[in-house]
Amino acid sequence: MQQNIFAIKAHILYAQTPQEIRCTEDGYLVCEAGRVAGVFPVLPEQYRDIRLFDESGKLLIPGLSDLHLHAPQYSFRGMGMDLELLDWLNTHTFPEEAKYKDLLYAQAAYRIFIDALLHSATTRACIFATIHREATELLMGMLEASGGVKGFVGKVNMDRNSPDYLREETGESLRETRRWLAGCSGKYQNIAPILTPRFTPSCSDSLLRGLGELQWESGVPVQSHLSENESEVAWVKSLCPDAAHYADSYDRFRLFGGEGCPTVMAHCVHCTAEELDLMQERGVFIAHCPQSNTNLSSGAAPVRLFLERGMHVGLGSDIAGGAHLSIFRAMADAIQCSKLRWRLLDQSLRPLNIAEAFYLGTKGGGAFFGQVGSFEPGYLFDAVLLDDGSLPHPQPLTPLERLEWLIYLGDERNLAGKYIEGQRIF
Amino acid sequence: MQQNIFAIKAHILYAQTPQEIRCTEDGYLVCEAGRVAGVFPVLPEQYRDIRLFDESGKLLIPGLSDLHLHAPQYSFRGMGMDLELLDWLNTHTFPEEAKYKDLLYAQAAYRIFIDALLHSATTRACIFATIHREATELLMGMLEASGGVKGFVGKVNMDRNSPDYLREETGESLRETRRWLAGCSGKYQNIAPILTPRFTPSCSDSLLRGLGELQWESGVPVQSHLSENESEVAWVKSLCPDAAHYADSYDRFRLFGGEGCPTVMAHCVHCTAEELDLMQERGVFIAHCPQSNTNLSSGAAPVRLFLERGMHVGLGSDIAGGAHLSIFRAMADAIQCSKLRWRLLDQSLRPLNIAEAFYLGTKGGGAFFGQVGSFEPGYLFDAVLLDDGSLPHPQPLTPLERLEWLIYLGDERNLAGKYIEGQRIF
Repeated sequence: MQQNIFAIKAHILYAQTPQEIRCTEDGYLVCEAGRVAGVFPVLPEQYRDIRLFDESGKLLIPGLSDLHLHAPQYSFRGMGMDLELLDWLNTHTFPEEAKYKDLLYAQAAYRIFIDALLHSATTRACIFATIHREATELLMGMLEASGGVKGFVGKVNMDRNSPDYLREETGESLRETRRWLAGCSGKYQNIAPILTPRFTPSCSDSLLRGLGELQWESGVPVQSHLSENESEVAWVKSLCPDAAHYADSYDRFRLFGGEGCPTVMAHCVHCTAEELDLMQERGVFIAHCPQSNTNLSSGAAPVRLFLERGMHVGLGSDIAGGAHLSIFRAMADAIQCSKLRWRLLDQSLRPLNIAEAFYLGTKGGGAFFGQVGSFEPGYLFDAVLLDDGSLPHPQPLTPLERLEWLIYLGDERNLAGKYIEGQRIF
Repeated sequence: MQQNIFAIKAHILYAQTPQEIRCTEDGYLVCEAGRVAGVFPVLPEQYRDIRLFDESGKLLIPGLSDLHLHAPQYSFRGMGMDLELLDWLNTHTFPEEAKYKDLLYAQAAYRIFIDALLHSATTRACIFATIHREATELLMGMLEASGGVKGFVGKVNMDRNSPDYLREETGESLRETRRWLAGCSGKYQNIAPILTPRFTPSCSDSLLRGLGELQWESGVPVQSHLSENESEVAWVKSLCPDAAHYADSYDRFRLFGGEGCPTVMAHCVHCTAEELDLMQERGVFIAHCPQSNTNLSSGAAPVRLFLERGMHVGLGSDIAGGAHLSIFRAMADAIQCSKLRWRLLDQSLRPLNIAEAFYLGTKGGGAFFGQVGSFEPGYLFDAVLLDDGSLPHPQPLTPLERLEWLIYLGDERNLAGKYIEGQRIF
């Protein structure tokens, strides 16, 4: 019996497009060498001798992708939510992030975060650490050891408009970043570095220029924030009078997508048409963070427009602007925010539906990590098994109804198994 | 040692006004004959011999009130959320409610609902059943036996604009309602009947007139829906050309508050100033149901305005327009919806904060049931004990921070005890 091939029997659901959730009831998914070989209603003859894991009755769906979250903020999620972005950063975020200079604190706090991430349905993530190189390396090592997620971690850069206790000198910021990248080389299987200028208000032109050069040399991807809040957008305009728009404040230093520069920008709530054109041209990913945009009163991004334009868009928990690590919750939040946006602001963009939200949380965001987030042949087999036995109901439900109900009501108790690239994690 | 008096030691939090959550760290609450005798930082000498329950480290807060929910809809919460109100009623709600004619189905379904309600932080509720008298009596009996909640249950009345399988003939509806009320008399300790015309579109003038007469005779309170959705409001206008407004469609039949007619109306998203004036004059309660209003794309009610006017307002889960039974979730939803309303629609009404949301879910809604929802002396001792041990964190938190975090992140696992009128339920 071959060791690198197996089949799972379950109700198999995945999205190929935003329009439809494909469902194979009591189907078979064959995984070979960490990739999906196919999904079949009946196990084909050629696979009759491979190992078969019978998970009948459970739902098998692609692992979820979280395109934006701040690991050090997990410790205060769900607290201090009565402020807007800039006040919230100064009151809650910066004082907490400063604590991660202390590696003992960082270890205790990251342990809690990593345990939660391991037991979530998230299999891929783009993660902000803090400005501290050593604590960032600690986080990467701990994530690697947990095996519960693959993805990117960034040492944050910030050299202006932040308190003394959480601000780097420009040259030091660049040196530490180079030192960090060099240290990452060949060190991890699951985790890779990502350049992480916090956002334009925190990064001088010199810093962004240096990071752009580093990106050009290294080919390391980029994550940052874009057009989250109206006050922030106005601030960037006054900080960067020569930039055509907020996106250009990154782009002019070659930190905004294009060949060899995979980039994900969180939020994009208030982007202009010109910015969206540029993002589309450069293949920049949008991390839509509906709960964070609600909690911080930022607004509601026009996700329907992003989808209609065929832009790259996925979901982010944005811990701790968002209080919940669950990307299922982000799917429900995305639908709910799109409904209020439609009703209160703009009836030209109809609300998202369950298939679209599921697509965003799986294939939409997964694309940032390669062939991830679907069960089409050739995709990396990231998956979770869902068991809704803890949610009793009096009537029979279809697998699609069960998926919708788990998106709205499920939590980590409904997770019965997790696979990353064909490896069963639990 | 007296049997009807005891003290609990815990972190004690409650709201007296919407402006402030009062907190007594490591305090003592004394309960005598089912009512709060007082909250003290140190146990007064006069109570030194009473039974003391040491719950140090836990939070003790008033039980939560759910002013609006549909028991038969619990079975399909979190499903079919991609529709607006009127389509959702016809596609999902009416077919499911029709099943409750079958008492075996009703028993199986209500068992699941009642078990969830028992293990929630809700101690008081206003509940819609279905049009079926027998299933309504079954629900009341099962709720009474569970002991997990006090409140009102209504047999629904509807004699028009609904499918044949879920529509009563006017005279039969009134006869069944009278028979039901007679049958309730003296039967329950925890549960009382409430008149429940579904909403004006489902109720002919004759039916509402008959229910108004019944209300006048019996003094039984009233619950219904008001101004949830724009299409519904327009429909009522065309159905009731002689009514001054939607509220008047109830008021002209004396089903809208005032002396001897306690009334709670769900939603009130699109009420006019005239309707709000009338509600305020008559002391009508508003059941604010933020998640339902989001899921069904109804809008966002101006709760800030209700509070500024000093109106009676509490929270409703509105199962299954809302997917979550938890009134903690309703608190967070109320804050989040108010933030999007502020950002997207109307910056004259600033968002709700955590103290205001907590007030709505405790004292605000509790007032419909009498002296309920606070720990001021004389209030009925409805309470829940909260234990956030399952939510690890790296830093010390104050009781207020822990309460906010439980509002955003907690679930039934964080419920360590429940009291209703001084009786410990679990």
